[in-house]
Amino acid sequence: MSEDHKLRLSVSHLLDIPSLSREDIELLLHRALQHKRHLAEKTDVTQTLAGKVILTLFAENSTRTKSAAIMAAHRLGAKILDWDEKTSSSQKGETFSDTIRYLSAFGPDAIVIRHKDYNAPYYVAKQVKCPVINAGDSWRAHPTQALVDALTLMELKGRIEGLTMAICGDVAHSRVAQCNMALFHKLGGTVHLVTPDYLRPEKIPYPNVKLFNSFEEGLKGCDAVMMLRIQKERMDQSLIPDDAAYFNEYGLTHDRLAFAKPDAVVLHPGPMNRGVEIADEVADDPHRSAIFHQADNRVPVNMAALDLFLP
Amino acid sequence: MSEDHKLRLSVSHLLDIPSLSREDIELLLHRALQHKRHLAEKTDVTQTLAGKVILTLFAENSTRTKSAAIMAAHRLGAKILDWDEKTSSSQKGETFSDTIRYLSAFGPDAIVIRHKDYNAPYYVAKQVKCPVINAGDSWRAHPTQALVDALTLMELKGRIEGLTMAICGDVAHSRVAQCNMALFHKLGGTVHLVTPDYLRPEKIPYPNVKLFNSFEEGLKGCDAVMMLRIQKERMDQSLIPDDAAYFNEYGLTHDRLAFAKPDAVVLHPGPMNRGVEIADEVADDPHRSAIFHQADNRVPVNMAALDLFLP
Amino acid sequence: MSEDHKLRLSVSHLLDIPSLSREDIELLLHRALQHKRHLAEKTDVTQTLAGKVILTLFAENSTRTKSAAIMAAHRLGAKILDWDEKTSSSQKGETFSDTIRYLSAFGPDAIVIRHKDYNAPYYVAKQVKCPVINAGDSWRAHPTQALVDALTLMELKGRIEGLTMAICGDVAHSRVAQCNMALFHKLGGTVHLVTPDYLRPEKIPYPNVKLFNSFEEGLKGCDAVMMLRIQKERMDQSLIPDDAAYFNEYGLTHDRLAFAKPDAVVLHPGPMNRGVEIADEVADDPHRSAIFHQADNRVPVNMAALDLFLP
Repeated sequence: MSEDHKLRLSVSHLLDIPSLSREDIELLLHRALQHKRHLAEKTDVTQTLAGKVILTLFAENSTRTKSAAIMAAHRLGAKILDWDEKTSSSQKGETFSDTIRYLSAFGPDAIVIRHKDYNAPYYVAKQVKCPVINAGDSWRAHPTQALVDALTLMELKGRIEGLTMAICGDVAHSRVAQCNMALFHKLGGTVHLVTPDYLRPEKIPYPNVKLFNSFEEGLKGCDAVMMLRIQKERMDQSLIPDDAAYFNEYGLTHDRLAFAKPDAVVLHPGPMNRGVEIADEVADDPHRSAIFHQADNRVPVNMAALDLFLP
Repeated sequence: MSEDHKLRLSVSHLLDIPSLSREDIELLLHRALQHKRHLAEKTDVTQTLAGKVILTLFAENSTRTKSAAIMAAHRLGAKILDWDEKTSSSQKGETFSDTIRYLSAFGPDAIVIRHKDYNAPYYVAKQVKCPVINAGDSWRAHPTQALVDALTLMELKGRIEGLTMAICGDVAHSRVAQCNMALFHKLGGTVHLVTPDYLRPEKIPYPNVKLFNSFEEGLKGCDAVMMLRIQKERMDQSLIPDDAAYFNEYGLTHDRLAFAKPDAVVLHPGPMNRGVEIADEVADDPHRSAIFHQADNRVPVNMAALDLFLP
Repeated sequence: MSEDHKLRLSVSHLLDIPSLSREDIELLLHRALQHKRHLAEKTDVTQTLAGKVILTLFAENSTRTKSAAIMAAHRLGAKILDWDEKTSSSQKGETFSDTIRYLSAFGPDAIVIRHKDYNAPYYVAKQVKCPVINAGDSWRAHPTQALVDALTLMELKGRIEGLTMAICGDVAHSRVAQCNMALFHKLGGTVHLVTPDYLRPEKIPYPNVKLFNSFEEGLKGCDAVMMLRIQKERMDQSLIPDDAAYFNEYGLTHDRLAFAKPDAVVLHPGPMNRGVEIADEVADDPHRSAIFHQADNRVPVNMAALDLFLP
């Protein structure tokens, strides 16, 4: 819990997975696991961030990411300064840049930001003097999500290296997919993308990523299957079929899951749209679904990010 | 402030009055009184909940209930994780059940919930591992309100047993009325309901409750008179007369209050609509109105609920 | 940090500048400077307000004032009870007066209030038992802003006495202008108002304030130039020209700034509308703009107000 760990992170901000080294990722996962153990034992967690103030700046809706960050801050003893865009001066014509300079002048010890614009967290990181944790930007980066997913797989499968994970559904608009591909690339796993044509990403970013149209081919040999919600809010809705038709073609059922390895686990970053991309029988299957196991890992991963990145 | 007290509560959640024993109610009121005394003496309250995190989940508007819960948590040293439905993933098609499972995975030490649906707090209590405090659901339960009212009467009248209280106005839509009837039933008081036909409840739940149409009959022999706001948001507004006409027929004035015992006190759970169900002359009468005395009891009652139910 | 300082303030609430004595202002500025130094040295600030709860009651939008108040409370160890008008019972017909009596019954240790109505903070101060800090009301008072501006000038110019500051733009609707005129009056400075006819205040409140129509005359001999945003939300918009035309006539450029003293500094309370009342070249000029220096002073000034006014 001290200086020696902090020296070992190779970066000052948690902006995305590609900017982390393999060692950074392993350190973050290791620390998250420690926190998870402490929380489970109900032993008092060291209040390592007592006296610190975390600025949360969420310009997009969120339940789980924001709540997990706040809970993590509370468990470490830090306080929250929440910036609410809806009641802020951006309504009075202030530029984003000026808002950031102002908030930075108030001296937060870290900033957790979610923003619809691709560049926002990177821009903020350059403007401010404290660490910035990207809690999701555009369709591109969401590093704590990828760390949550990796921690879940580490616990269930013991490793990422050598694993094959299918990522299915709306890959085109998914920062979760992007970050997981990057993390599997860093750690030596393989990713199968299973998507209809209209939800296929424009390019395949890494050689360890392969593209499939059908569950039958795409799930073959997979150790994990990650389902994604259709991000209707990011697309022209006339392009997608109705929910029932989509489920018929791309919803995960037990029949389809059978194409994967017999012990393959099912992940979903949430929020789930049941009956659209995933059937209840899969989401609630205690032997296959790791979805609420992922949920359990959110606070520990956020605690690791906060205490490793904070000075 | 310790285990011996906690063992004495017969339930794990504060869901409603009927599920509490008479001893539970007395223990909660006793503890609330202790907290009230400590707060008044400005002696430092023991931070018995330091390190704890309370999840507040308010899916209906509230000033006093939510603020009192948060203030109580602060005074006991606990932190707040506030879940805001408006910026949450229920907007992205997530089921309430999944949202609750997620929030539960984040490990709150207690949940304070207000919800328009009858069953919501009970459902949550079954899903989660921590105590749930119902801060009001539907038209049915609002146990901390009934405890606030009972504490006020205990202080002013010394007892509930043997007391008669009139509850007047919109009984049909009032969880406050429901909970007070239940509490008077448990503790041996009598309730007179004074309502126009169109605001009469469908059934009378207890033998100690009697129904009246007029203040003259209903207030006779009463030690306390509780006025209720018309919950316009819960009804077809064409059914009710305009404010002036309602006041004329069912507003509490000094003339009407004179039908009760000479030392009868006036209660109102708030928010008051002055000039509708209550006249200024009554609301602000320092000798008769206990309305802001009720307000004084909200934080102590919430402190008692938090520290007795938390593990 | 103790009783001897508190005795020296002549008032119980921070409502406006005119109610403060010159000594009050100097004490507040002195304390703010101490806090600023402590924050900069990253030495642990004494948690002088640990266990205290500050009620923040913002009935108008705000980024910087509210965030600075919350950050100041956090740095002093106090907790926040935030009252959100939008989800409150004022929506259910409760009077402002009753809401305040209720919130006061919950026992906050101080109230920080922003309200569109002229009289609101004064009314609250009379109703409650704790200190009230006015964070801006109507077009009239915003004392912490004036203290921020004064602290900035003290640091850059060493004094207010004998200084001349131009306040330019929408003076008519500006509580910032009102408070700065009052503060310059108290401390012996001179103010030049530079405004178009349609943004001129109805009356000139102090003999040390003079009125000008042009930058050329108004900026002559000035040590500081404060630019104001047009408060479109407070006026009939048909009265004002479009942004480009306004900038052409009343936007601050380097050419216009040249009418002031060569070392004159530029202030702006924010939010800035760049390209309307101020050019980027001025706002971002490191030698002339003190705008983000003002930002740096917000948290220290709020810390001074909280710790000096709290009992």
